[in-house]
Amino acid sequence: MASDSTTGFVSGLEGVVAAQTRISHVDGLAGELILAGYRLEDIADKVSFEEMVHLLWHDRLPTDAELDRLRGDLARWRDLPQATLDLLRAAAQAGYPMMDALRMAAGACDLDLSPGERDNETLGFVLLARLPAAVAAYWRLRQGLAPTPPNPALGHAANYLYMLNGVMPSAAQVRGLETYLNTVIDHGLNASTFTTRVIIATRSDMVSAITGAIGALKGPLHGGAPGPALDMVFEIGAPERAEPYLRAKLERGERLMGFGHRIYKVRDPRAEVLAAAARELYEADGDRALYALANEVEETAVRLLVEYKPGRNLQTNVEFYTALLLHGLGMSTELFTPTFAVGRVAGWIGHAWEQLATGRLIRPASEYIGARGRQVVGAPSSS
Amino acid sequence: MASDSTTGFVSGLEGVVAAQTRISHVDGLAGELILAGYRLEDIADKVSFEEMVHLLWHDRLPTDAELDRLRGDLARWRDLPQATLDLLRAAAQAGYPMMDALRMAAGACDLDLSPGERDNETLGFVLLARLPAAVAAYWRLRQGLAPTPPNPALGHAANYLYMLNGVMPSAAQVRGLETYLNTVIDHGLNASTFTTRVIIATRSDMVSAITGAIGALKGPLHGGAPGPALDMVFEIGAPERAEPYLRAKLERGERLMGFGHRIYKVRDPRAEVLAAAARELYEADGDRALYALANEVEETAVRLLVEYKPGRNLQTNVEFYTALLLHGLGMSTELFTPTFAVGRVAGWIGHAWEQLATGRLIRPASEYIGARGRQVVGAPSSS
Repeated sequence: MASDSTTGFVSGLEGVVAAQTRISHVDGLAGELILAGYRLEDIADKVSFEEMVHLLWHDRLPTDAELDRLRGDLARWRDLPQATLDLLRAAAQAGYPMMDALRMAAGACDLDLSPGERDNETLGFVLLARLPAAVAAYWRLRQGLAPTPPNPALGHAANYLYMLNGVMPSAAQVRGLETYLNTVIDHGLNASTFTTRVIIATRSDMVSAITGAIGALKGPLHGGAPGPALDMVFEIGAPERAEPYLRAKLERGERLMGFGHRIYKVRDPRAEVLAAAARELYEADGDRALYALANEVEETAVRLLVEYKPGRNLQTNVEFYTALLLHGLGMSTELFTPTFAVGRVAGWIGHAWEQLATGRLIRPASEYIGARGRQVVGAPSSS
Repeated sequence: MASDSTTGFVSGLEGVVAAQTRISHVDGLAGELILAGYRLEDIADKVSFEEMVHLLWHDRLPTDAELDRLRGDLARWRDLPQATLDLLRAAAQAGYPMMDALRMAAGACDLDLSPGERDNETLGFVLLARLPAAVAAYWRLRQGLAPTPPNPALGHAANYLYMLNGVMPSAAQVRGLETYLNTVIDHGLNASTFTTRVIIATRSDMVSAITGAIGALKGPLHGGAPGPALDMVFEIGAPERAEPYLRAKLERGERLMGFGHRIYKVRDPRAEVLAAAARELYEADGDRALYALANEVEETAVRLLVEYKPGRNLQTNVEFYTALLLHGLGMSTELFTPTFAVGRVAGWIGHAWEQLATGRLIRPASEYIGARGRQVVGAPSSS
């Protein structure tokens, strides 16, 4: 760990190991993401989101009975309390972006629980069940539509699409969304996951921890903006325009959105999984021409990046295929980061369980670089 | 820094320097707390809370014109939006504790601002001005009382007492509260301040950062519970009962609440300042017998702790005199931690400014201690 100061200040805590976890492991050099023992590509498209949640929370896949119980626990808590809906209505009227509204809704998601129900275990189910309900409700309220009541017969991912659009999703759409949610469910000690751990480590509650995490994910340096990668694909418009467009962009020294990652020095394994999920979705019931175009743009971009930025190894990142996949699910760009939160919240809650098990307050030190020995001059001010 | 693992995991980030700051410096061995260049005891009872806020945010005390402007900025934003009050009403009906309601109100404190007004600078004033308004409103709503509208002629501390009680506070009460707020305004990189920095470092917004911080402060390992120290004083009831009561407690091996601190190995400088503030308050318009009793309890406790726990150096901590001072201001125990937040939020916001200036994401690493090489067995599950 590099230090910029004599006391050992570690800017950004880079390289400092702040937690031990069984939930996920990111190996940027190998291009590997392990989720509770499974390589991402060995599990993401093979299990439902509920199975993945059980895996992360209990370190093993559920039995059939456990899976039924988890589905039931989640379906039971999907209805938002009236006060939470009122708050979302007020936020819609005030013109709040999606992530602000989601943070507000999360912080007020349990207003219908009795004090005795507000244990962290129940709150974990309530948060997991209600985050997608809140995103869907707010999305519709912003467009002047009534929220869709949840459908208790549907699984978690299917119900999210149903609440968003008010129509039953296809099997391909549900599978596409499950694979997306499974893919982004956890990713080491990123800033929002770390926020969850810092808050819950004070023995605060699950709602406080997740509300803080959403606030962190909201920041552009974390949650990012998967929109621009797709905008570029639309701007290019036709496969034969990919090379001249990208070449011109690189000649002007501009950055290509959707390529390169701080941690992964080879291709991000999530990009691989999402590319396959996008292909299946678009082949089943999507705009195949758009998928072919995106594919052409990606291949051309990677080839030209080798030419223009030799040795930099700039590969397609998770944002590129996230955008394509979520667009294929009928989602607007504004829904990308909230949908990311709908998946990641399961990881946050898993990390909260781990942190609670260790029982240690996270309390780093600071280095004082200010003045000393100042004295107040003159008479005390009146109040 | 001690490490429990081969990769360098630092449990609780103890001893890791995660930020450089000009806001405060805690020297536990010397028993010293510096606030932007001033020793706590040289400034806490000499300036108003608004002056202290300016000092922490701008690294110098304000000119008269700057102080006027700050008072104006704060007075302007005290009225809570209707939607925030509605949320507090729903929380009161659901029986939420004070800190949960404060976190909800903070997260929804700017519902009346236009999108153009939601810059971090304005949000800083809005949060500082509205946290006490939210505490006071919720306190009254919980008792079936209507919230008191703010009084724009009053300073920040005076208005808080006015909104809580609906009557004009005395000069001694206002001074007592200002000294309390100044004393707790910042204290190094505690868990809530660190939460603020982690969230704002993603370039999220001030409301998200402060909402997260309140969630962290809510935890009993951080915000603590200054109530029990005072409960003990009440239980003792008379000065002559202090020694037999405390001796019996220590003989049973019980802990004395209000004594000892993780960081301070000598007397906590905040305890000193709050003891003096309590004395002045109780002498001016308080229950002098209670003050004398608390004093006797403290002196006896410190003397007996030397006898029963030799070498441990257990001194009176900030909680003991916090409880006495806030009780003297007419506050119930439930208001202690929220009132702490009313002071500390100024420090949080100051740290947010510092963190934004460095522009670095706070993203530590984790150590994976889970399984590897697992494989999904059987057919993909249906969704």
